[in-house]
Amino acid sequence: KNRGILLVRCPDQPGIIAAVSRFLFQYSANIIDSSQYSTNPEGGDFFIRIEFACEDLQQKKEEIKTSFKAIAENFSMDWKMNFPSEVKRTAIFASKELHCLRELLFEWQSGDLITDIAVVVSNHETARELVEGFGIPFVHIQASKENRSEAEAAQLKILQDYEIDVIVLARYMQILTPAFVEAHPKQIINIHHSFLPAFVGARPYDRAYQRGVKLIGATAHYVTNDLDEGPIIEQDIERVNHRDNIENMKKIGRSIERRVLARAVKWHLEDRIIVDGNKTIVF
Amino acid sequence: KNRGILLVRCPDQPGIIAAVSRFLFQYSANIIDSSQYSTNPEGGDFFIRIEFACEDLQQKKEEIKTSFKAIAENFSMDWKMNFPSEVKRTAIFASKELHCLRELLFEWQSGDLITDIAVVVSNHETARELVEGFGIPFVHIQASKENRSEAEAAQLKILQDYEIDVIVLARYMQILTPAFVEAHPKQIINIHHSFLPAFVGARPYDRAYQRGVKLIGATAHYVTNDLDEGPIIEQDIERVNHRDNIENMKKIGRSIERRVLARAVKWHLEDRIIVDGNKTIVF
Amino acid sequence: KNRGILLVRCPDQPGIIAAVSRFLFQYSANIIDSSQYSTNPEGGDFFIRIEFACEDLQQKKEEIKTSFKAIAENFSMDWKMNFPSEVKRTAIFASKELHCLRELLFEWQSGDLITDIAVVVSNHETARELVEGFGIPFVHIQASKENRSEAEAAQLKILQDYEIDVIVLARYMQILTPAFVEAHPKQIINIHHSFLPAFVGARPYDRAYQRGVKLIGATAHYVTNDLDEGPIIEQDIERVNHRDNIENMKKIGRSIERRVLARAVKWHLEDRIIVDGNKTIVF
Amino acid sequence: KNRGILLVRCPDQPGIIAAVSRFLFQYSANIIDSSQYSTNPEGGDFFIRIEFACEDLQQKKEEIKTSFKAIAENFSMDWKMNFPSEVKRTAIFASKELHCLRELLFEWQSGDLITDIAVVVSNHETARELVEGFGIPFVHIQASKENRSEAEAAQLKILQDYEIDVIVLARYMQILTPAFVEAHPKQIINIHHSFLPAFVGARPYDRAYQRGVKLIGATAHYVTNDLDEGPIIEQDIERVNHRDNIENMKKIGRSIERRVLARAVKWHLEDRIIVDGNKTIVF
Repeated sequence: KNRGILLVRCPDQPGIIAAVSRFLFQYSANIIDSSQYSTNPEGGDFFIRIEFACEDLQQKKEEIKTSFKAIAENFSMDWKMNFPSEVKRTAIFASKELHCLRELLFEWQSGDLITDIAVVVSNHETARELVEGFGIPFVHIQASKENRSEAEAAQLKILQDYEIDVIVLARYMQILTPAFVEAHPKQIINIHHSFLPAFVGARPYDRAYQRGVKLIGATAHYVTNDLDEGPIIEQDIERVNHRDNIENMKKIGRSIERRVLARAVKWHLEDRIIVDGNKTIVF
Repeated sequence: KNRGILLVRCPDQPGIIAAVSRFLFQYSANIIDSSQYSTNPEGGDFFIRIEFACEDLQQKKEEIKTSFKAIAENFSMDWKMNFPSEVKRTAIFASKELHCLRELLFEWQSGDLITDIAVVVSNHETARELVEGFGIPFVHIQASKENRSEAEAAQLKILQDYEIDVIVLARYMQILTPAFVEAHPKQIINIHHSFLPAFVGARPYDRAYQRGVKLIGATAHYVTNDLDEGPIIEQDIERVNHRDNIENMKKIGRSIERRVLARAVKWHLEDRIIVDGNKTIVF
Repeated sequence: KNRGILLVRCPDQPGIIAAVSRFLFQYSANIIDSSQYSTNPEGGDFFIRIEFACEDLQQKKEEIKTSFKAIAENFSMDWKMNFPSEVKRTAIFASKELHCLRELLFEWQSGDLITDIAVVVSNHETARELVEGFGIPFVHIQASKENRSEAEAAQLKILQDYEIDVIVLARYMQILTPAFVEAHPKQIINIHHSFLPAFVGARPYDRAYQRGVKLIGATAHYVTNDLDEGPIIEQDIERVNHRDNIENMKKIGRSIERRVLARAVKWHLEDRIIVDGNKTIVF
Repeated sequence: KNRGILLVRCPDQPGIIAAVSRFLFQYSANIIDSSQYSTNPEGGDFFIRIEFACEDLQQKKEEIKTSFKAIAENFSMDWKMNFPSEVKRTAIFASKELHCLRELLFEWQSGDLITDIAVVVSNHETARELVEGFGIPFVHIQASKENRSEAEAAQLKILQDYEIDVIVLARYMQILTPAFVEAHPKQIINIHHSFLPAFVGARPYDRAYQRGVKLIGATAHYVTNDLDEGPIIEQDIERVNHRDNIENMKKIGRSIERRVLARAVKWHLEDRIIVDGNKTIVF
């Protein structure tokens, strides 16, 4: 496709859009979609996502990227320019509960998730048949508190071998080490089975049941080294009532988890998310 | 009306419904609606709400109540029998933010909230015109940390003078003393402006904004002496995004708060709620 | 399991619950859950669903059914008594779009849909691999306007051979003949890809797009001989906006369709639905 | 305030944003927010809403408007430039059901609806006290099938006297003549008490009840001369079940109607809506 996506963050000031749009116009690029946000028009931060179409983009794209640097410098921009034709490569980490993995595989098979699911890594064999049925490599890496560094070394090798851009923790349930997380900033997406910041940590459905809440939720977020404190990408909820025991809450929760995670991954793959400190801007 | 409502809680065992329904049948009462719940059919607690219709109920109701005691004893029941014709008397406590108070007044005026709103108490004059416009007495009682016991003495007198059954804290914003709360068990309903247990305590919208959540909520609960820890009656949420600053979250939040509180008060007035420890069963 | 479910419909009058609950008590059956509804306590229709637990139910169940006939006659009841241990047998009819079929298969595999999926019938080969991967027989029966009677004869044979209780049309897309429908009253569940009664008939997403609606929906209903007019079991919606073209609406729609159909099938399998003319009562 | 809003519609082509943003930059205007949409980047229609801030806008605004004409002509634009400081003047038409009127008055009083509510017109006296209590003129104009032209003449005079920009039909329940509607294109907002296109016309809740739907809705739309067929601005729904009779559906419906209408009016007042044939683009 002849599409490009420009993501920018810089101090707000007049003239940014004029400069960027003139730049694109010079390359005969048509702005297809654009969303912007400013934390404060006076002295705040400015964020923009521009999707453009351009004939012969494949030939021109390196030149466009190179010549954009002048503008970027001028406005002190953090920026990246991606091309949907360069499909991102995803690794899914799973464990024994497969509903999130399945949802991703099916969205992918239906063409609703544009990525190469390059490999599925799991600390159990449970998902092998499902994954291989889709023609996707499945790698079993035993992982637990005890062998964390060894396991992560094996995982890192897989990520390199498969040239992975995005890691999705589809109910992976193992803690990652700071080193692992820092090596993949804004690249690891996790699904937490509660409406954060309620019920941070383990066993959220049990605690939701004990507290007698009337809604339960799930939260997709980027992984940072503060447990369940990373930038939230998406959340959703469902209604429960006094009849719903913990088992039932988990069932209902599964349907929330899988749709929340699928949405978050989709937005990430479409370059719709800019991380701003501990928050996300989702265009 | 010839309607009665029976609320029961007792240890579960076979034969409860048979006994209660035969009892009502003996008084020619027709069971109009009935909902039940058991925490565990074997050794758990059993809860039931029965709404019945009965000709000449006004004449018979004392006799029915008296003769029900035998069954209640037999099954070790906690129970109450209420009659919708004996309309509950409500006091609303308000402060400067009036959206919840207004919602209650309008639902009441539209006939959607069956109660006598006997008095509105506030620590500010802001609501006087609104309240008196509805022909409802408005009492200003200055209240702050400094004069808490004095203020509560004045409030208690008002509650007695007006023979109040239900106290609704419609964004009242003042802490009540343990003595006040204990004097009104399961009678005080509060609206907290967050999706509990997230953001317990003060300034929840500010904290929701800081955390970058994608949904904000409100929670109606019975007041106990553990701040924001009382049994939850109802919760709801709305979606927000990165564009919503704190001011905007408050606006969106107001519409959640008023509908959540209105629902909770309505269910309480219709005797639909049984408190079970720190949870509610809403039939 | 020692569980039974009684579904009753009869003219409302006092004493029904007393009679039924005494009857169950005589067999030492404990009422686990019960929901009732009356169109009008005076002269209306009464509906009740009772779930009961009873030791040695397997031995007693025929006797219970037989002796209940006296009560049923007395109150002019339409009734049935089912036992969850007698698992219903389901046939799924599919075509080329597999999202609804997949959802049902996965809910079934996760244990969230208690049934035997005995066979999947399709007029295309598309689903064969998926279905057989679950160890379920897949039967391809070519079906079109031209060979309808021939195709239905083959389908009926399959339904008989597999002793089917429930037929789920998971986006089957073919019209069934009146004879076929009448042979399976309240046994065929269809998913229509619109919020009925909006967009009855073909190509609902195209028409939703043309009309510029802001929400799209899906409807699960029992199939009758009036196209898209059968009793509605469940509906749900998602928000769309001007950016969503027809293709996008279909994507969003798929996620609504599959969850609406899965819920409806689940309620049917749990004997939660009583059909009342052109409506459903879902307990 | 120093804010301006530019709404544009024109054939899509590269360079539009470059031209517009350079234009604004020349006046030292900072683009605060901008949303765009194209029906098709090649040969389709392009829509954009730009909100800009500019010092001394009051002095410059006529000049900006005048000099924008050159660009507008160049790109064959339909456009308008509004200034939030020029507050729109609203007339609300009401009848006997006041929930929508009340919601608008309270949103307005809370500062959530930025407009001058200049007058309320009604064919009944019901709302007089409420309206005058807010210090807003109330005009009673008897209206029915019989005196339609006479009534509309009186209404038109009021609209002129009060220099009205927006007419909100807050459950006004009277049909307007084609002449009246044509005189106010895209200026009249109505709330229809169903999820259009389901239940076009009269008595939608009765028909929803008869059909046995599981969700009911409301629709805010611009009024055209095709009954209930005007461009939809906003819709929302609530869940109902078999227990909800027509009266109950109306109650639930009231809460949907008022929030849907309030949102639509708000978006209109904020110049967020562009009408595109029979659809709306809501930025």
